Amino acid sequence: MTINHYQKRYDEVSLSREKVFRDPVHDYIHIRDEIILSLINTKEFQRLRRIRQLGTSSYTFHGAEHSRFSHSLGVYEITRRIINNFQRNFPKSINHPDQWDDRERIVALCAALLHDIGHGPFSHTFEGIFQTDHEAMTRAIICSPETEVNRVLRQFDEYLPEKVASVIDHTYPNQQVVQLISSQIDADRMDYLLRDAYYAGVSYGKYDLTRILRVIRPYNYQIYFDFSGMHAVEDYIISRYQMYMQVYFHPVSRGMEELLSNLLDRAKYCYKEVPETMQTPIDLLTPFLAGDWSLEDYLFLDDQVLSSYINQWQKEKDPILKDLAYRFINRHPFKSILVADDTIEELKIAAQQVFTANGYDARYYFGENSSFDTPYDFYKPYPTSTKTQIDLITKSGQIVELSQASLLVSSVAGRERGDHRIYFPREILVTIRQKDAADLSLAERMINDAYQAETKDVTHQIQQRLF
Amino acid sequence: MTINHYQKRYDEVSLSREKVFRDPVHDYIHIRDEIILSLINTKEFQRLRRIRQLGTSSYTFHGAEHSRFSHSLGVYEITRRIINNFQRNFPKSINHPDQWDDRERIVALCAALLHDIGHGPFSHTFEGIFQTDHEAMTRAIICSPETEVNRVLRQFDEYLPEKVASVIDHTYPNQQVVQLISSQIDADRMDYLLRDAYYAGVSYGKYDLTRILRVIRPYNYQIYFDFSGMHAVEDYIISRYQMYMQVYFHPVSRGMEELLSNLLDRAKYCYKEVPETMQTPIDLLTPFLAGDWSLEDYLFLDDQVLSSYINQWQKEKDPILKDLAYRFINRHPFKSILVADDTIEELKIAAQQVFTANGYDARYYFGENSSFDTPYDFYKPYPTSTKTQIDLITKSGQIVELSQASLLVSSVAGRERGDHRIYFPREILVTIRQKDAADLSLAERMINDAYQAETKDVTHQIQQRLF
Amino acid sequence: MTINHYQKRYDEVSLSREKVFRDPVHDYIHIRDEIILSLINTKEFQRLRRIRQLGTSSYTFHGAEHSRFSHSLGVYEITRRIINNFQRNFPKSINHPDQWDDRERIVALCAALLHDIGHGPFSHTFEGIFQTDHEAMTRAIICSPETEVNRVLRQFDEYLPEKVASVIDHTYPNQQVVQLISSQIDADRMDYLLRDAYYAGVSYGKYDLTRILRVIRPYNYQIYFDFSGMHAVEDYIISRYQMYMQVYFHPVSRGMEELLSNLLDRAKYCYKEVPETMQTPIDLLTPFLAGDWSLEDYLFLDDQVLSSYINQWQKEKDPILKDLAYRFINRHPFKSILVADDTIEELKIAAQQVFTANGYDARYYFGENSSFDTPYDFYKPYPTSTKTQIDLITKSGQIVELSQASLLVSSVAGRERGDHRIYFPREILVTIRQKDAADLSLAERMINDAYQAETKDVTHQIQQRLF
Amino acid sequence: MTINHYQKRYDEVSLSREKVFRDPVHDYIHIRDEIILSLINTKEFQRLRRIRQLGTSSYTFHGAEHSRFSHSLGVYEITRRIINNFQRNFPKSINHPDQWDDRERIVALCAALLHDIGHGPFSHTFEGIFQTDHEAMTRAIICSPETEVNRVLRQFDEYLPEKVASVIDHTYPNQQVVQLISSQIDADRMDYLLRDAYYAGVSYGKYDLTRILRVIRPYNYQIYFDFSGMHAVEDYIISRYQMYMQVYFHPVSRGMEELLSNLLDRAKYCYKEVPETMQTPIDLLTPFLAGDWSLEDYLFLDDQVLSSYINQWQKEKDPILKDLAYRFINRHPFKSILVADDTIEELKIAAQQVFTANGYDARYYFGENSSFDTPYDFYKPYPTSTKTQIDLITKSGQIVELSQASLLVSSVAGRERGDHRIYFPREILVTIRQKDAADLSLAERMINDAYQAETKDVTHQIQQRLF
Repeated sequence: MTINHYQKRYDEVSLSREKVFRDPVHDYIHIRDEIILSLINTKEFQRLRRIRQLGTSSYTFHGAEHSRFSHSLGVYEITRRIINNFQRNFPKSINHPDQWDDRERIVALCAALLHDIGHGPFSHTFEGIFQTDHEAMTRAIICSPETEVNRVLRQFDEYLPEKVASVIDHTYPNQQVVQLISSQIDADRMDYLLRDAYYAGVSYGKYDLTRILRVIRPYNYQIYFDFSGMHAVEDYIISRYQMYMQVYFHPVSRGMEELLSNLLDRAKYCYKEVPETMQTPIDLLTPFLAGDWSLEDYLFLDDQVLSSYINQWQKEKDPILKDLAYRFINRHPFKSILVADDTIEELKIAAQQVFTANGYDARYYFGENSSFDTPYDFYKPYPTSTKTQIDLITKSGQIVELSQASLLVSSVAGRERGDHRIYFPREILVTIRQKDAADLSLAERMINDAYQAETKDVTHQIQQRLF
Repeated sequence: MTINHYQKRYDEVSLSREKVFRDPVHDYIHIRDEIILSLINTKEFQRLRRIRQLGTSSYTFHGAEHSRFSHSLGVYEITRRIINNFQRNFPKSINHPDQWDDRERIVALCAALLHDIGHGPFSHTFEGIFQTDHEAMTRAIICSPETEVNRVLRQFDEYLPEKVASVIDHTYPNQQVVQLISSQIDADRMDYLLRDAYYAGVSYGKYDLTRILRVIRPYNYQIYFDFSGMHAVEDYIISRYQMYMQVYFHPVSRGMEELLSNLLDRAKYCYKEVPETMQTPIDLLTPFLAGDWSLEDYLFLDDQVLSSYINQWQKEKDPILKDLAYRFINRHPFKSILVADDTIEELKIAAQQVFTANGYDARYYFGENSSFDTPYDFYKPYPTSTKTQIDLITKSGQIVELSQASLLVSSVAGRERGDHRIYFPREILVTIRQKDAADLSLAERMINDAYQAETKDVTHQIQQRLF
Repeated sequence: MTINHYQKRYDEVSLSREKVFRDPVHDYIHIRDEIILSLINTKEFQRLRRIRQLGTSSYTFHGAEHSRFSHSLGVYEITRRIINNFQRNFPKSINHPDQWDDRERIVALCAALLHDIGHGPFSHTFEGIFQTDHEAMTRAIICSPETEVNRVLRQFDEYLPEKVASVIDHTYPNQQVVQLISSQIDADRMDYLLRDAYYAGVSYGKYDLTRILRVIRPYNYQIYFDFSGMHAVEDYIISRYQMYMQVYFHPVSRGMEELLSNLLDRAKYCYKEVPETMQTPIDLLTPFLAGDWSLEDYLFLDDQVLSSYINQWQKEKDPILKDLAYRFINRHPFKSILVADDTIEELKIAAQQVFTANGYDARYYFGENSSFDTPYDFYKPYPTSTKTQIDLITKSGQIVELSQASLLVSSVAGRERGDHRIYFPREILVTIRQKDAADLSLAERMINDAYQAETKDVTHQIQQRLF
Repeated sequence: MTINHYQKRYDEVSLSREKVFRDPVHDYIHIRDEIILSLINTKEFQRLRRIRQLGTSSYTFHGAEHSRFSHSLGVYEITRRIINNFQRNFPKSINHPDQWDDRERIVALCAALLHDIGHGPFSHTFEGIFQTDHEAMTRAIICSPETEVNRVLRQFDEYLPEKVASVIDHTYPNQQVVQLISSQIDADRMDYLLRDAYYAGVSYGKYDLTRILRVIRPYNYQIYFDFSGMHAVEDYIISRYQMYMQVYFHPVSRGMEELLSNLLDRAKYCYKEVPETMQTPIDLLTPFLAGDWSLEDYLFLDDQVLSSYINQWQKEKDPILKDLAYRFINRHPFKSILVADDTIEELKIAAQQVFTANGYDARYYFGENSSFDTPYDFYKPYPTSTKTQIDLITKSGQIVELSQASLLVSSVAGRERGDHRIYFPREILVTIRQKDAADLSLAERMINDAYQAETKDVTHQIQQRLF
C-alpha cells in the first residue's frame, strides 16, 4: 500500500460535516470519518449497549450502570485526541522512530473503537462456566466475513480487518499503535478510570487527562512521556491504584460474582442432567450448554438475555437454582472472610463441612475469589508482550523509567496487592453467632475465628492485602 | 395515633449506625431508618435496577443508561434533606399551618422512595399497547399483602401502606407531604433534572439545589419558598424547560419510541392471530397478551425481559416483526416530519398512501407523536389536583406567585410547547428524494414539501413549537 | 501588505514549543506565538494583576477576588480556540464573505489580549471622579511609542498597534475580527460570565462553551451561529441575564461603590481645598487631582495604590474623609432604598433633609445608583455601532435572529431591567426606626415609607425592576 | 463556668435567622452565631481581604489570587461541620474521653476563624526582614484590649480571648479542640488544599472531604478517624504531597520570593543608611524600619500597602532598589539552580564571584532557598507539640496508625522532600552561555555545570529531591 493509495481512500470517506455525540466524560465524542460512524452503527457494536462495563459493581455502586458502548466511544475519542496531537506536533516526513505516521490513523481509531467488541455478558464469570473467550471473539467479530463490522472494515481496505485485529492482540508491527491501545497507560485505561469514577460517583479515578494528552509522544518506535508531565503520570498511576482498591475489588461486588458463578454452574447442571424438569426455555443459551455454538449464537448473548433467564429461574423447581436466582436478582450477595495463604486449605475444608452440616450444598454455596492487581509493572521479561513500563523523556533526551522518578509509584511498583476471600451465604455466620461458643464444632470455630480475625484485628487484614 | 406511639416505633427502628450509599448526584444517600433499608432490600424495589429511567433516550444520549433505582434513592435523599431542615427550622410544637409535623417523617420518606415502584419497562409505550397502568401498580405493590414492600411497611405500622399510597395519589390529608412528592417543584423533579443531566452529560439541568433546600418551607398547610430564593427557583424552572426541549423531547428518542410501539403491536398481533408460526417463547409476556395478568406477573417484567424477547424476534419468520425488531435492537429509529395542526390529517393520509405504495404496511411503519409540556402552570382549575403554582413568601409574609416575580418564568408560564411529528422509515425519504420531481405522486409531493418546510424554513419549525 | 509578507513574519515568531498557563476556567491557556508571550510580559499587561475584575463585588461574593489579568488571558484563549476552528473549517482560499482569513490571526489575538489594558482601579467610580477614560487609555497604551506593549507590537509589524486599537474601538475593516472581541456574544463576555461565576461560586454563569465554539462561524463578513446551536446560545443569554441580576447588580456591591465614590470625592476636596491639613502623601494620585497627568502617571495607578491611600486616610483629621475611609476599608456599605421614577425627586430631597438633620453632610452621605442592563438587544439603529443582534443560520442558509427563535430570549430582548436606588448610612434607618411614628418628620416618614414599601410589599420591588 | 451559664450565653447570641455566604469551595458558609458574624465584621478580620493566601504563587498560577479572608471562612466552616457531626453522633452526657463536649463549640469556632488573623503581607519573607512574628501577632490581636476582635470575644465571655489564643498556640486543655485546628489533618489544611487547588486550577488538591467529615471522631481526648475511612485519609495525604510538590514549592514562586526578600532588604538599607536620597514616603513602613512598632502599626500593613511602595520604588534613584522593584512588580523572577548538599558551599562562593564579576552586588542578586516538607510524620518525640500522627480506629476499637495501614502513606511518611536552590538573575546564565567554553572562569564553569546537571541529567534532579 502506498501513501497515495491510502490517502485517497481516507479523503473519500471523510464526513461532509463532523458529527458529535454528547459524552459526560469527554464532553463530546468527535467523528470525522465515515468508517467510524459506520462501525458504530453495526449491530455488533450496538450490542455493547446491552453489556455493562462493570458487571456486578453496580450492586455496590448503584450509579455505575454504564455500558461497554459508552466506554468504547471514550477509548476511541482519547485515541483520536492523541493522534491529532501527534500529527500536529510530530508529523512524519520520512521513516522516523520519533514521529507519528498518520497513515496509521484509521487502523488505530478502529482498533480503539473495537477493542472490547468481543466481550460477553458478565465477562469473566460467564467465560469461566461456558468456556468462551472474549479475546478470540473480538478477533472473530473483526475478521469473520459474516459480521457487519467486518464488512465495513473491508469496504475501506481489504486488509483492514486483519490489521485491526493484530493491533488488539499486540502483533501489529507498529508498536506505537499497539501501545496506544494496550500498555500501562493506554487509551483504554485512561477512559475507564475516568468513566467508572464518574458513574460510580467516586473522586479517586480523576487525574489530569488534558496534561497527559499534552505530554504523551511517539519516540523510538514506541510511546513515551515528556518528563515535565511526570506528576500527571504519577497521579494517573495512583488513581488507578485507588480505583482498584476502592471500586474494582470491592468485596460485595465479588460476592455477587461468586453467587452468579455458582448460579450459572447450577443452571448448566440442571439443563444438562435433568432437562426434563426445567420449565424456562433458554434457547439463546442452549448452544453454550452443549458446547457447540457459532459466532451468531455468541452475538445474541448479552446482559439482558442472561438476566431475563435468571429472572425466570426464580420460578424453577430445583431448590438450589431457584434460591441462587432469587439471591442474585434481588441482590443478596455472598458474605466473605479474608483468608491467609497458610491457612486457606484447611479453612476451605472447614467451611465446606460447616455448609454441609447446615444443609447447604458446598458446590453451590461456597466461593473462592482472589483479587490481585499490579498497578505498575516496570519489568516483565517477556520480550513480545505489551510494554509494561512507562518511560519519561527529558528535554535533553534522557530516558527515565517512571518508578525511578516517582517516590509514590516506586512504592506500588512491581508489587501485587489484593486479597484472597472465601464466600458463602450470610445465614451461615448468623447461625454460628447464635450458638454457644461451647456448642461450636471445630470447623465452625475456625470459620468464626477467621471472621473475628478480620473484623477484630485490622492488622490481620492489612497483612493479607499487602504482599 | 399519638405522638408517643409514633415516636416509640421510630426509635425502635433507627439503625445503630447511619448507612450511606455513594451517589454521583448527591454525593451520599444517607439512611438512618431501618425501614428504609428494608424497603430498598425488597425484591420489588431491586426490580427498579432493571428499568431505565429514560427509556429510549439512551439511544440519543448514550451516557443516560441509569435506572429508576438510582432516581428513587435520589428522591428519597432530597426529601430527607428537606425534612431535616423543616424539623430544625420549623418544628411543630402545636398544630400549626406554618410548621412541620415530624411525625410525618416516615410516611414522607417511604412515599419518596416508592413513588415510582409501579413503573414497568419502557413505561408509556408498553402501557399503551398492553393496557397496564403504573399508578395503579404503584398502589397495588404498596397495598397488596403479597409484596415484600407491603410486609415491611406493615411491620412498622399497619396503616402505613395505605398512608404511603395516598401520598402518592395526592389524597393524603397533609398536603405538605403530598407536595414534597408531587408538585411543580418536588423532590421527584428536583432529582431527575439533576440526575438526567448528569448522566446525559448536558449542563442544562443543573440548578442550585443547595439554595432551594434552604428556601423551601412549610406554610399555610402547604409548601412555599422564601422570596429571597426567587432566582434559584426561577433557574430551576428554566432548567426544566431546557431539559424538556433538549433531552426529553428529542425527536430521535421519540423515533425509537414509535418504532417500539409498532413493534410491540405487531408482536401482540402475531402471538394472538398466528401463534403457531411463532418460535420465541415469551412466557413472561403471555399473560399480558391475554389481558389476564396478576401482580406477580407484572413484577416479572422489566427492560431486560422485554429486550431479550425483542432480540429473539429478529429470528422470527414474520417479516414485519423481524424487521422492526432488527431496527429497534440495532438502533435504526424512525425518521420524522414536523406537522402543523391544520394539515395534519391530510398529511397523515398522504403518508399512509406513500408507505403503502412503497410496500410498507402503514399500520406498522407509521407513527404519530406529540410532545407537549407546560413547564410552569400557575393555574389549573381542578381543586383536587396537586398544586400547580409556586408561591413565594416574603419576610413580611406577603405571598407572590412565581410568574408574577420572574420575567423568565412568565414567558413560559401557562404555555405549552412541543411539537407534532409523524414518523416513518428513513428509506421512504430516500426513495422520494431519488425520484424526479415530475414523477412524484401528489402524496409524495406533500411529504416531500413538509420535509423541506422543516429543513429549509426554520421559522416553520419555530411556529410549530411555540403554541 | 501581501500574504507572503505577513506569513513570513508569523513563522518567524512562532515559539519553538507551545507554552501553557494553568487556568481554572479553561484548564490551559495555550500560547504558540512569541508576540503573545512578549505582550504578557510587558509591564502594562502585568499591571492588570493589580486590578480586580469585579471591583467592589468581592465585598458581596468573597471568592471573587480575581484580576483583569486572568480575564484577559481567558479572552485571548477563547479567541484562539474560535480562530483555530475557523481556520480548520472555513479556511479562506479567495476573498470570501463566509470564510475566515487567517492573516487576521495575530491582530485578533492581540486585540483579545489587550482589550482591557486601559482599565484603571475601581473603573467607573474612579473615572467619574477623576475624568479618566479607560477606552482612551487602552488606545494610548497600544499606540503610544513609550509603552512596552507598543514596542512589542511594532516589532512584529509597524502598523499592528493601530490595527489592534481599531479592532478594540470597532473601526477595523474586518468586522469578523471586531465581532469576536465586541458583540452580543463575544470572547470578552464568554470569558467573564464563566470566570466571574467560577470565582463568585455561583452556578448561574455556566453555559455550554464547547458547544458555542462548535457553532460559531464566519458568514457574510460577520459572525453567525449555526441554528443547531440555538439552545446553547439561548442558554448563554439567560446566563448573562442571571449573572447581572444576581451578581453584577447586587445592591450591596453598589452600596460599596457609592461609598467609594463619595470617599474619593471628599479626598479630592480635601487635597484641593485644605491641602495643608492633610498628612497622607499621595504622590501617585496628585497629578489626577490637578487634572494634569501623563500616560506614565496613569500606569502607576492600581487597586493597591488606591487602597493603600484609603487605608491611610483613616488616620486623617478631616472627620468625613476619615469616617468614609473607615467604612470602606472595613466593609460597612451604604444601605439602600429602591425608588420609583415618579417619586425619585421628592424622595431625594427628603433624604437629604433627613441626613442633614441627623448631622450627615448630604454631599458625602448620600448616593444614587441606577443599574440597567439590556441583556439582549436585537435592534439598535446606529449603523456604525457594534453588532447588537445574534443571527442564526440554518443548514439551508436561512437567517433567523435569535429572539425570533427563542421564547426565553424574546422575553428579555430589548427590555432593560435593573433598579434605581438611593444610598445612605445604615445608621439613619436605625435612628428613624427608633423614633415614635408621631415624632417622625415628613421627610423621615417618606424615607421610612419607601423602605417599608420595599421590604413589606414585594410587588413594589418587582414593578421597579421590570421596565 | 457551668453548663447553664454557657448555654444561656449561647442562646442569647444565636442569630434569629441563619446567615450564609456563597463560597466556591464549600458552596455556602453557614453562620448561626452572632459572635461569628461580629468577628467577621471587625476591622482586623476584614484586613485579611488584603493579604493573599499564597503570596507569590499567583505569579506562577495566575488564578490563585485569593485572600486569607476566604480561607479563614473556609476553616471556620469545616470546623462547624465537624462539630455539628460530633454533637449529633457523640454528644457528651458525662465527662467522657470519646465524646464531644459541645460547650467547646464557640471557642473552637472562634479559634478556627481567627487562626490566621496575625498574618502580615508576604508572610515569611516580610518576617525575615523585619523581625515580625505572625504567631505572636495572632495572640496579640486576640488578647489585646484595643482590638475590635478582642472586644467582641470579651462581650461573649471575659475569658474567651485567652481561651481562643491558647487553642491556637496548642496549650488549651481540651486537645480535641486543639487538634481540630492544628494537627496532621485539621480544618486549616483541609480547607487550604481544596481552596488553593480550586483557585490555582489544579486537580491535585481534591480529596473526599464529605467522607472525611463522616469518619472523623472524638476519641480518647483526641481526634481519631474510623478505619473505614482509611482510603479517604490516605487520599488526603497524597493530595497534600502533590500540592507541595506541584504548587507550594514551585521554583518560580520561590524565585519571586527571593527577589522580594532582597528587595525589602535593600529598601531597609536605603531608608536606614541614605534616607536623604529617598523620595517615596513610606509612613506605614517606617516604624518597622526603626524596629519600634505597635500593634496598630502592624494592622495597617497589608499586601496593598507594600505593593504600592514597591511600585513607587521603581522611580527611586538607587539603582539596585529601582531595578529589583521593577523586576518584582513586572514579574521577572530570579532563575535557579538545584544544588547538592556536598557542593553547596563552594557553589555559593563561585556564584557570588560570578555575580560580582558581572557587576551584580551579590548581597542583593543572590538568593538561597530550601523547600522541605514532611507530608506525613508519624512520630515526633516532643510531647508538648501538636499531634503528628493520624490514628485510625476500627469498629472493634483497635487503633492503627495511618502509615501502618496505607502503603502509599508509608512511602512518604517521615521523609522530607524538597530541594535546595540558589537564585540569581536570568541574565547571568545568558551571559555565561554566550561565552566560549574556553573563556569561562572556573567559577562560571561551576555554575554552568550545575545548571547543565539539572537540565541535562534528570536523575541528578531526582536524587536531590528525594532525601
